[in-house]
Amino acid sequence: MLKLNFTKKLIAAAACVAALAAPAQAADKVYRLKMAETWPSNFPIFGDAPRNMAAMAEKMSNGRLKITIDSKNKHKAPLGIFDMVRSGQYDMGHSASYYWKGKVPNTLYFTTMPFGMTAPEQYGWFYHGGGMELMEKVYSKYGLLSFPGGNTGNQMGGWFQKEINSLDDLQGLKMRIPGFAGEVLAKLGAKPTNIPAGELYTALERRTIDALEWVGPSLDLRMGFHKIAPYYYTGWHEPATELQFLVNERTWKKLPADLQEILRVAMRTAAYDMYIQSYHASAENWEQMKMAYPEIQVKSFPSDVIEAMKAANNELLAEKAKADPLANEIIKSQLFYMQKSRVWTDISDKAYLNSLSSN
Amino acid sequence: MLKLNFTKKLIAAAACVAALAAPAQAADKVYRLKMAETWPSNFPIFGDAPRNMAAMAEKMSNGRLKITIDSKNKHKAPLGIFDMVRSGQYDMGHSASYYWKGKVPNTLYFTTMPFGMTAPEQYGWFYHGGGMELMEKVYSKYGLLSFPGGNTGNQMGGWFQKEINSLDDLQGLKMRIPGFAGEVLAKLGAKPTNIPAGELYTALERRTIDALEWVGPSLDLRMGFHKIAPYYYTGWHEPATELQFLVNERTWKKLPADLQEILRVAMRTAAYDMYIQSYHASAENWEQMKMAYPEIQVKSFPSDVIEAMKAANNELLAEKAKADPLANEIIKSQLFYMQKSRVWTDISDKAYLNSLSSN
Repeated sequence: MLKLNFTKKLIAAAACVAALAAPAQAADKVYRLKMAETWPSNFPIFGDAPRNMAAMAEKMSNGRLKITIDSKNKHKAPLGIFDMVRSGQYDMGHSASYYWKGKVPNTLYFTTMPFGMTAPEQYGWFYHGGGMELMEKVYSKYGLLSFPGGNTGNQMGGWFQKEINSLDDLQGLKMRIPGFAGEVLAKLGAKPTNIPAGELYTALERRTIDALEWVGPSLDLRMGFHKIAPYYYTGWHEPATELQFLVNERTWKKLPADLQEILRVAMRTAAYDMYIQSYHASAENWEQMKMAYPEIQVKSFPSDVIEAMKAANNELLAEKAKADPLANEIIKSQLFYMQKSRVWTDISDKAYLNSLSSN
Repeated sequence: MLKLNFTKKLIAAAACVAALAAPAQAADKVYRLKMAETWPSNFPIFGDAPRNMAAMAEKMSNGRLKITIDSKNKHKAPLGIFDMVRSGQYDMGHSASYYWKGKVPNTLYFTTMPFGMTAPEQYGWFYHGGGMELMEKVYSKYGLLSFPGGNTGNQMGGWFQKEINSLDDLQGLKMRIPGFAGEVLAKLGAKPTNIPAGELYTALERRTIDALEWVGPSLDLRMGFHKIAPYYYTGWHEPATELQFLVNERTWKKLPADLQEILRVAMRTAAYDMYIQSYHASAENWEQMKMAYPEIQVKSFPSDVIEAMKAANNELLAEKAKADPLANEIIKSQLFYMQKSRVWTDISDKAYLNSLSSN
């Protein structure tokens, strides 16, 4: 009897452990996601966005969603994020959509476009103007989800060793300006070049190149270009550069609904937060640059140069729209939304700012 | 033995239930919070912000954080939110900080100020320039936590029956414009009046008042003012109106850390989201107004009027700064941050927008 009784107790205890374990597993299961970022370790602002996102997700989930971040120092493939998240080698990525245009041409449109939307206009397009749906159309066939990943705000037109007073000054101009904007300038006779980040300072100092664009004061300060180039041109080519969170669709589907929402909201907030952090850092850093080098001259391109760049940009867009129906759909959607929202920008923020400084 | 054995089993079963219940209670306890909003039921945009926030919080917490919202139709005290949240009658509120200036004068500064910061500048101040800390200084002594609650973007200067060509045109001008901006105009000879929202249309139509300001196209469209007033003036008095989430401190402290973070992030995201929603709705609604009434004229106040309003505004701020050390600290902090960030705004977004439209 004693023995039997003991066995019964063991069975009861085992049932009790099983009963405890079942709900504990469902509620407390920890999901560990691996994210690869394009940026080096501890990169400011761009790298703060995924760190901010991961910290919010972990805290909101009470430790059930843990996201570790590998920088390019670790994975060695800053421009391999798309492939690594697609294959499932990483669950998530933090990068920029326009880096994938060589692989999937229509990814070009989800970062920023020359003469395109400002940050609030572009967020309006993403969230209310069909932008998210078009991005899904482009990414879903690769088993990827793409979300806004943080905005740099308006990027400066770049650091120049000489003034640009006319279209003639663009002829043969050697400028580090990658991507679509480089194509625009090439149409006008400039010579866009690509040079690794670590060699840019020396190239500009020794006049191997005449000009370069990087980001804006937020990230230009640490590069030191303001010490060696007298002209800082205002922006035209990246009016609202939005970084990107990528998520592998299989990873996404494995997450319970509450963790999906935590991840969605953490990404959305981190993106907005980076916009504000960039704005702040640009204001701070521009003040520092100006104090150390008060002779820096801020210039805007003359109106005939702007007109010619716009015309070249429109030609390139027309070619892309003609070649691909989805490209056509995206370009039209952006143009339509920009025209509508720009009328509002012009009578609100722009009118306000101009009414103050005209005095 | 059998009886004893049965009792033992009961004890074992009870222990098992207790063991199950303890973690279940901690992990699954549902926190039900009551929120009062200043707005009527189903009010668009302003009312969408708390609904969006509550939906995100409930989904992210898997139903552990449930927030119900009472509109003014229910609680009948649209301007009683501060008191009702302070007393604990409601756990949370959604309103605007400047409504409490009659009760706590320094609450004035956390919504928007005439000739003040734009939306990204002001978010920069809140999150990186000391704004949140100053808001806490003002609210903590009332047992309240205050958070940004959604931005309207730049508000229009209002609908006018006649043009304002000089300071003389402000003399005796009867205008619905409440609060601090009304005080500024009063200094210049205008007669600010307050009229209930439901009577505004008739008052403007019958010229009981000469002008009124409301919000901007996002919320002006439904009021119909564009049908009865020919001039729509650009903004100066509310460049970035930020609504407010209020939380009772005792409620906040009762929440576990994960739900506090869920609530914090949901409020933060809902605030940003409302900024983008307002931007979008203004663009949409302004297009509608212009199509239906193409004769509407958008005007900006002449520069001497702007200068005089700025001077009157500065005088009022100087009086407030002199009368109260904390007011002085807040006003200086805002002015310092605005000056620094405006230099950046001017060479980034403003330069970009002006370079496009000069062509």
